[in-house]
Amino acid sequence: MTAVVAPRVGHLLGAPHHDGSALYVSTPTPHLGESVTVRVRVPVGLDEHGVHLRVVRDAEPRLSAARLVATTAQDRWYEAQVLVHNPVTSYRFLIDVPGGYRWLNGRGLFDREVSDAADFRLTVFEPAPAWMSRSLVYQIFPDRFARGITDKVLPDWAQAADWSDEPLASGHGVSTQLYGGDLPGVHAHLDHLVELGVGTVYLTPVFPARSNHRYDATSFDAVDPLLGGDAALADLSRAVHERGMRVLGDITTNHTGVGHDWFTAARADRSSEERAFYYWTHDEPGYVGWLEHSSLPKLDYSAPALVRRMISGPASVIGRWLAPPFALDGWRVDVANMTGRYADQDLTHEIARTVRATMAEINPDAVLVAEHFHDSGPDMTGDGWHASMNYAAFTRPVWSWVVDPDSAVPAVGLPTALPRRSGREMVAAMRDFDAVVPWKVMATQWNMLGSHDTPRLRTLVGSLAMVEVAAGLLFTYPGTPVLFAGDEIGARGTNGEHARVTMPWDDPERWDQATFDVFRALTALRSASDALCVGGLRWVVVEDDAVAYLRETPDESVLVLLARAPWAGARLPAELVPDGTVPRTLYGSAPLERSDAGWLLPGTGPGVHVWRVRDTALATDSSSARTADAAHR
Amino acid sequence: MTAVVAPRVGHLLGAPHHDGSALYVSTPTPHLGESVTVRVRVPVGLDEHGVHLRVVRDAEPRLSAARLVATTAQDRWYEAQVLVHNPVTSYRFLIDVPGGYRWLNGRGLFDREVSDAADFRLTVFEPAPAWMSRSLVYQIFPDRFARGITDKVLPDWAQAADWSDEPLASGHGVSTQLYGGDLPGVHAHLDHLVELGVGTVYLTPVFPARSNHRYDATSFDAVDPLLGGDAALADLSRAVHERGMRVLGDITTNHTGVGHDWFTAARADRSSEERAFYYWTHDEPGYVGWLEHSSLPKLDYSAPALVRRMISGPASVIGRWLAPPFALDGWRVDVANMTGRYADQDLTHEIARTVRATMAEINPDAVLVAEHFHDSGPDMTGDGWHASMNYAAFTRPVWSWVVDPDSAVPAVGLPTALPRRSGREMVAAMRDFDAVVPWKVMATQWNMLGSHDTPRLRTLVGSLAMVEVAAGLLFTYPGTPVLFAGDEIGARGTNGEHARVTMPWDDPERWDQATFDVFRALTALRSASDALCVGGLRWVVVEDDAVAYLRETPDESVLVLLARAPWAGARLPAELVPDGTVPRTLYGSAPLERSDAGWLLPGTGPGVHVWRVRDTALATDSSSARTADAAHR
Repeated sequence: MTAVVAPRVGHLLGAPHHDGSALYVSTPTPHLGESVTVRVRVPVGLDEHGVHLRVVRDAEPRLSAARLVATTAQDRWYEAQVLVHNPVTSYRFLIDVPGGYRWLNGRGLFDREVSDAADFRLTVFEPAPAWMSRSLVYQIFPDRFARGITDKVLPDWAQAADWSDEPLASGHGVSTQLYGGDLPGVHAHLDHLVELGVGTVYLTPVFPARSNHRYDATSFDAVDPLLGGDAALADLSRAVHERGMRVLGDITTNHTGVGHDWFTAARADRSSEERAFYYWTHDEPGYVGWLEHSSLPKLDYSAPALVRRMISGPASVIGRWLAPPFALDGWRVDVANMTGRYADQDLTHEIARTVRATMAEINPDAVLVAEHFHDSGPDMTGDGWHASMNYAAFTRPVWSWVVDPDSAVPAVGLPTALPRRSGREMVAAMRDFDAVVPWKVMATQWNMLGSHDTPRLRTLVGSLAMVEVAAGLLFTYPGTPVLFAGDEIGARGTNGEHARVTMPWDDPERWDQATFDVFRALTALRSASDALCVGGLRWVVVEDDAVAYLRETPDESVLVLLARAPWAGARLPAELVPDGTVPRTLYGSAPLERSDAGWLLPGTGPGVHVWRVRDTALATDSSSARTADAAHR
Repeated sequence: MTAVVAPRVGHLLGAPHHDGSALYVSTPTPHLGESVTVRVRVPVGLDEHGVHLRVVRDAEPRLSAARLVATTAQDRWYEAQVLVHNPVTSYRFLIDVPGGYRWLNGRGLFDREVSDAADFRLTVFEPAPAWMSRSLVYQIFPDRFARGITDKVLPDWAQAADWSDEPLASGHGVSTQLYGGDLPGVHAHLDHLVELGVGTVYLTPVFPARSNHRYDATSFDAVDPLLGGDAALADLSRAVHERGMRVLGDITTNHTGVGHDWFTAARADRSSEERAFYYWTHDEPGYVGWLEHSSLPKLDYSAPALVRRMISGPASVIGRWLAPPFALDGWRVDVANMTGRYADQDLTHEIARTVRATMAEINPDAVLVAEHFHDSGPDMTGDGWHASMNYAAFTRPVWSWVVDPDSAVPAVGLPTALPRRSGREMVAAMRDFDAVVPWKVMATQWNMLGSHDTPRLRTLVGSLAMVEVAAGLLFTYPGTPVLFAGDEIGARGTNGEHARVTMPWDDPERWDQATFDVFRALTALRSASDALCVGGLRWVVVEDDAVAYLRETPDESVLVLLARAPWAGARLPAELVPDGTVPRTLYGSAPLERSDAGWLLPGTGPGVHVWRVRDTALATDSSSARTADAAHR
């Protein structure tokens, strides 16, 4: 048993709460014109005069009174109707308390006027299929995962690397050192993925190219023979599906490689159809390259023929790889944020909707995920990309909370080291970014602790104990947990290139089984709790060194506590756990202890604790309304 | 001389600062592809390692080092280049300080990741012509200003009111009691406007209608004969222009009256061109009305003929009233926020751009202002409406700071009374709303202390002293000061309808000359200071009962202090005032006093103080760079 430090800090359970989960919203994807029931809980003791719903309709807000429908030991529950008059309908709550009303929106409770930017949102757009966020997405960089084919010829652009070589971190050769991993290699190690609890395999590009990362495709029509060619992808896809997993591809909609057939045709012949696929300039090198890289000419989607060949319809690049025998379950889209954007042209949302429509035509269960390293919020309405790689709202804030200040890893994309921030700063950043995205999108965003473009988590945090804290967040926070292959066995690396280490299948020195056991336990934790997969998110404690939150469905409440260091502990209200329920420890060593004054959150750290604090239905429906109304004033 | 309470509170001059004014931005309206020099001041003592500019280009940020170009006694000035690659180009600064970099954006300084939503913004769009924000806009509700014509026949829908009658606040007759003010009446009282210091007359609608407010036009082709007809408007326009003032009209692009010619034709004949101008439904009354009012059928801009007749080209309604002899200097657009928005249709920005283009064709110096009662931010890119009625970012926050809690006036549009909030809450709300709008738009927004849709300021605040505090903000804050006729002589009213009182030209009981003197002094204050019209905005003190800010141009700094009650006072750094400069009191009774430790802000209140603290050029240009570089590390 763990010693409990005398609890000193406050908790946030005294604040009203609403989010887009099933406990609060009757219909996550209504049709246009449908009325949706929304609920808000107001803690007993706020002494509110009333609660009103504010819905924006055609850019004009409407206020309506919410109705008290139930009272529990902790909260009064109010209910109101949101008419989904616009495809994206935003709303928030006015809590009329003594001293002046408060607004409740996605960022929290405000005692002043707020813009509509953080309003809750209902949309008519289908979110990503449920399979995506229920289990782990496992990112594989094919050149570095495993070798399957033995008789490969080294291409002209490449330098051969030994499997045990440390990858170059920068300079000449960084993108041309070739380790020779391939798709049969992936196929041969699927048992590792099954053991880890992987649900989805995400492969970085498999098209032929002139680099080890293959983001400079020379064709979208075939799988790189170095990886095993089309047959190897078909075989791998079959094997993945046989094991109950899914597989995603990676596509560069923003650009091709300079060696791509289209670009060759475009340069050779000004009258070619492909000529219009690119942006031509008078300056060197004569065309627009992604971030000025002449090796990556940018695609211009004002060309109808490009739209047709690349993204629109079953015969397009997007379409054909989703069909058998490749049967990809979706795409991760490279540089999605810049795709279709150039100067005064902005076709990004139109492209995203076209890609989505093409995919739906072939496989309505396929997913579409955008790479977006920055502020993806304005692009995440949910009618195009299902989700984005959530660097901004998850990865960066979490990194800054768990980073070892001595690691001196760079803040990716910034000319400075990654600073260590407090839990308050982490949560403020997460809430700010999360609040502008519809809940059902936020709940499927790709949360990561790293990728092939970042330092390795283990290098960043400096210890397995802190890897566990970060991973604890990954597997318990709303969204889709995504892991870069190797993180589960303690891979290290100081930047994106240096982090593309090979999987050390035969090197126990580089294979940390203790780390694997942590990740294995966390995938099991997540799959054992519906609340952790689809529950709401209610912040309970936000301190410098510890954060705690509740994930809740109508039938289950799970309390998650993450501490990066010893902290003061906290005391939560007795009503947190319904009478007759004994909290069950789902993860971590400490039970949730009861004192006369409530439940004690241990002040130990670093560590991860997860308790199930409710496993019965919460009585919040109108059936109990009359009783509740009678009980309250 | 005023007794100075011992200063106790802190000031904000220790924070880095940037805004879109001339002190910080070389080219407010660059062309696409132009490079703009931006500057940021970092107070000496922050010990920064460096400053970097982050510019978003095609949705991808780029970082570049800013260059130290000058050092003053207070600040180090850094300079960098923003390439305006997109029509709206956003940027912010990374201040690399010990303990972790900070972001500086339009909301302030952050020690965590922030979204791009509050980034500073440069746009290629011309802002409102400079004349608008340099002087007072004076709103006239024609029925209540003054009677000029004596032989009017009461229309069938109206009930005659005596000039001294108190307007109805609600219920039957509220929109049909007719006082009989008209355009010759306005004409006869232009001397009052000149004396007050008015620059622009804004007339609420003058088209024929079936109400006293005339927002239910029956035609856009003529001026209401009750107001004097076309000739009266032409006469008034000529007289206004002769006095060096300008005149704006008011147009309901969102709807017509149910009695409008177009609607009559549309109802009478399903094959008429006008049929497509409206949204027809199967429910009662058979068409969509504004906020379900059957008297106000909503216009559907997917009809090309409506676009042509209403907004596009010199012959459209928008166009023709700008031409002689009416020569309106622009339009205020009623319900602009809802115009063109209905369910899954959103043509608002397209309509705004079309209106703007039509106006530019006839008079490039005309202005276009949107009514927007709520969060206008997302509509204020500046390519359509020049400015909006700034209820959200100015009126509501200011109201909540100055309101007399005993006044019990309603919070407009909300089912509760207007609460009293602190200065911190007021400024947080203002900064939140302001930060999402390009500076040059924010600097021309229509700031108001009330309108024909709100309670009267005097009723809301309860005293002339507090009217002065509110008006002090109005005339010193960035934006265009707008006054509803009558506020300058102490008009009262509990809601929008009740506030539409007549001007008491012959009733000294209702004419408060002391109030007039305050407004007259404040219009004079503003016109005597370039910094108050176009200077930047730097918050200096933000406390519960007092706020202070600097308005600064390259040649002038003006310090504004507003207190709603006695407060602790503050001590500002000695360097605030350049050596050799004696602060000059521009408004208020207290001089800015110097102690050994700095300048003392008096803790008296309520009150308004304005001092000019610099009247010499600030050395921030690169010419002093070498000296500065040598002085600093």
